[in-house]
Amino acid sequence: MVLIGKKPPMNYVLAVLTLFQNGQDQVILKARGMAISKAVDVSQILKNRFLKDVEVKDIRIGTEQVDNQQTGGKSNVSSIEIVLQRGA
Amino acid sequence: MVLIGKKPPMNYVLAVLTLFQNGQDQVILKARGMAISKAVDVSQILKNRFLKDVEVKDIRIGTEQVDNQQTGGKSNVSSIEIVLQRGA
Repeated sequence: MVLIGKKPPMNYVLAVLTLFQNGQDQVILKARGMAISKAVDVSQILKNRFLKDVEVKDIRIGTEQVDNQQTGGKSNVSSIEIVLQRGA
Repeated sequence: MVLIGKKPPMNYVLAVLTLFQNGQDQVILKARGMAISKAVDVSQILKNRFLKDVEVKDIRIGTEQVDNQQTGGKSNVSSIEIVLQRGA
């Protein structure tokens, strides 16, 4: 699994390419909150420019509880998982 | 279809609720670029707080070409469509 964070999209594109090159045939992109848009970007850059045989096999969205540093309590954040499958 | 833009999420939650109240049993949330995260937020707020019987029936991600005001040319932008189905 590749967890999308604050780095530029190409960092994650490279990470996924490496996993596929090392023999994995499925890689999951995971992101929370504002990084969700970047996860979709990464999946599209991979499909359009690097791995023409990769398919989006599944997309899961949901809500997760995370620690809220300001309030000390819990808050809800949206999440996405994009399952990329090679040779699907 | 509800196109997610720059307004707060609750504006779109209200728009979807209105469409369901007017008898639609399926509503598509559509967003491009950074608004993709907000579209997922809207779907989760609806499911978790307002419409317990609504299911995410399908999620489609893709790439669209939009006019780039700075360059005058075209540029790629990611897009998402989240299909919300009532009583699925």
